[in-house]
Amino acid sequence: MLIVKKFGGSSVRDAERIKNVADRVIRDYNEGHDIVVVLSAMGDTTDNYIKLAHELNERPSKREMDMLMTTGEQISVALLAMAIQAKRVPAVSLNAFQVGMETTSDFMHARLKRIQTQRLKNELENRKVVIVTGFQGVNRNDDFTTLGRGGSDTTAVALASVLHADLCEIYTDVDGIYTADPRVVPNAKKLDEITYDEMLELASLGAKVLHNRSVEMAKKYGVPLVVRSSLVDAEGTVVKEDVPVEKMLIKGVTCDKNVAKLAVIGLKNEPGVAFKLFNILARYDVNVDIILQSIGRNETKDISFTVAKEYLDDAIDALNDVNAGISFEKIHYDVDVAKVSIVGAGMMTHAGVAAKMFEALYNANVNINMISTSEIKITVLVHADDANRTVKAIHDMFE
Amino acid sequence: MLIVKKFGGSSVRDAERIKNVADRVIRDYNEGHDIVVVLSAMGDTTDNYIKLAHELNERPSKREMDMLMTTGEQISVALLAMAIQAKRVPAVSLNAFQVGMETTSDFMHARLKRIQTQRLKNELENRKVVIVTGFQGVNRNDDFTTLGRGGSDTTAVALASVLHADLCEIYTDVDGIYTADPRVVPNAKKLDEITYDEMLELASLGAKVLHNRSVEMAKKYGVPLVVRSSLVDAEGTVVKEDVPVEKMLIKGVTCDKNVAKLAVIGLKNEPGVAFKLFNILARYDVNVDIILQSIGRNETKDISFTVAKEYLDDAIDALNDVNAGISFEKIHYDVDVAKVSIVGAGMMTHAGVAAKMFEALYNANVNINMISTSEIKITVLVHADDANRTVKAIHDMFE
Repeated sequence: MLIVKKFGGSSVRDAERIKNVADRVIRDYNEGHDIVVVLSAMGDTTDNYIKLAHELNERPSKREMDMLMTTGEQISVALLAMAIQAKRVPAVSLNAFQVGMETTSDFMHARLKRIQTQRLKNELENRKVVIVTGFQGVNRNDDFTTLGRGGSDTTAVALASVLHADLCEIYTDVDGIYTADPRVVPNAKKLDEITYDEMLELASLGAKVLHNRSVEMAKKYGVPLVVRSSLVDAEGTVVKEDVPVEKMLIKGVTCDKNVAKLAVIGLKNEPGVAFKLFNILARYDVNVDIILQSIGRNETKDISFTVAKEYLDDAIDALNDVNAGISFEKIHYDVDVAKVSIVGAGMMTHAGVAAKMFEALYNANVNINMISTSEIKITVLVHADDANRTVKAIHDMFE
Repeated sequence: MLIVKKFGGSSVRDAERIKNVADRVIRDYNEGHDIVVVLSAMGDTTDNYIKLAHELNERPSKREMDMLMTTGEQISVALLAMAIQAKRVPAVSLNAFQVGMETTSDFMHARLKRIQTQRLKNELENRKVVIVTGFQGVNRNDDFTTLGRGGSDTTAVALASVLHADLCEIYTDVDGIYTADPRVVPNAKKLDEITYDEMLELASLGAKVLHNRSVEMAKKYGVPLVVRSSLVDAEGTVVKEDVPVEKMLIKGVTCDKNVAKLAVIGLKNEPGVAFKLFNILARYDVNVDIILQSIGRNETKDISFTVAKEYLDDAIDALNDVNAGISFEKIHYDVDVAKVSIVGAGMMTHAGVAAKMFEALYNANVNINMISTSEIKITVLVHADDANRTVKAIHDMFE
């Protein structure tokens, strides 16, 4: 069996943890499996350098930031190779350039374009454990790029796809996907199985376990995923195409505090306004999440939307870009907000799920700011201070 | 003018130093020069990782050590690029793979084979300051290699050579080449000029300022070198082919404590013994320095030689290799030794230089262990404890 195993930064943060990872890898290797390991940078390896970067340049270029950041995974893969070799198991570490991990040129949030498999296959044929740097790629000019948030998951799933791996294991510091964040909701339950779509909604809604890009890719290429703990030896949660209908309709409650709400007040009430607005945001690389439009006073309209906090400045710049040709009265923004969502396949076809959720919020005296729904999720935007209380109230209601 | 500037690890050890380097580079850039900067890893960047490597594996593979080590220069070049860009001067950092710095596959002591100049030239034509990782290369399998001691100097000289640079400046924490180590001999004098050959002898004899590989290469390709201080703005020492005859015959006194002496006692006194011995040492990649042969008792002979301390274990392994077919009684070794040398062009044609040196040692009551001479140097091996006293005595004698 060919298994791709991905370990995050906390799984390799010191010598002890690296040895644990080595042991786990060797166990599967010794059972005859071919193993590709994908690693993130060690815990806080790059933190000092990022700090230094900002001492040297308030706005360091993204190209040079990626040049700096990509050293992090190179360090961790080399160290794991040494730890595995210490147990007399052959291993080799490869960075993005050595693998041939081609990406777009969007520094700090590049997208994978192509992965060369020759070297990987050669090393696997020589029965080596192949350890690959996650998160990073190389553009067509040979510049290093990084894949942005959740990038190592994406690397793992992409490798599993191009190598036709039998399994892609994502090791994290939790032991699977839960119905809610166990730190917020102590009686949250671990799921044995979940569909790609449900996982996708959970991921895009702030469940930190898997990033949506990696789940999208896993769904697209049918890569069998398992999310499991790097600390304890437990079964984890399988993410796959079809899951037998379960008794529980709601798969989980998630909360995302990394969100900012923007309201553009007093837009002209004419065709093309929304197009212009979201077009300029796209050109500024701002990913928009929930969108809400309402009729304002005096024949104007207001458009509200949410973005991840790091896009707030760019969003405001975009809206004020004179080339966009958008006229409005003013912009409001609020960063003290949180998105709380419930996710479950077929949820919307069951009457009363939304009503039940809103009832929970009413009982908990939580004010709802925005509402957004899809086939398999319902999201509300609430004040950040209400977030944990909201998650608990909903979880209890559906428990 | 195209100038290659090399800065060592201490010149980039923190934000302040990196900014200093940036200022120096920008000054020359603004005068219209094209600038290529070669950097070592920051002060002690990689020390922690090397420590960690040895926690994970007592004998980490050289391939993986190089994978680990090469991250150090990548960090420093990225940071310098940011510091230069902060002053609105265009800059780009490149690692060995991006430049196309091809080496042999001898991990940890690879040799440069070929340097691609296309990308370097493109970036220079775009008037960018090009910042290149020193010390590292890539072999034909795309594995990272390192050039061993003094590797960044070698990178700088090699780049100056292939780019036909007008000048190669080696910045160090001293302000030039001295007649002796100023920490040992307070009245040592700075030289304005020195020939490649003299520099070569000084370098190979432990003057830490320039490594002999880089001087050899500079001599071979006629690269004009300057050694100057990264801390103060002073003239430095020019290293070139011909230097006008100076009054002072002796260019310098050097001392190298990184040396071990081995004596192979009781070798058969027959042809081919020396060949076998040095052949097996070469096959173990052991560089031998001073060699001394003497007739032993009972028709046997003894061969003594010195190696850099890090080669001692390998040398002993080599001598004990049964495949070498060398029979001897025993091996003695001594690491408490130091090589002290005087260097100066035409020295050996002047009668009395050697005699004067030995007189100095006799007066200082220093016991000489081995003696070796060449056209432009005289070396003695003394006890390590006598080293500084020896240097001072000789320097005073020739002063």
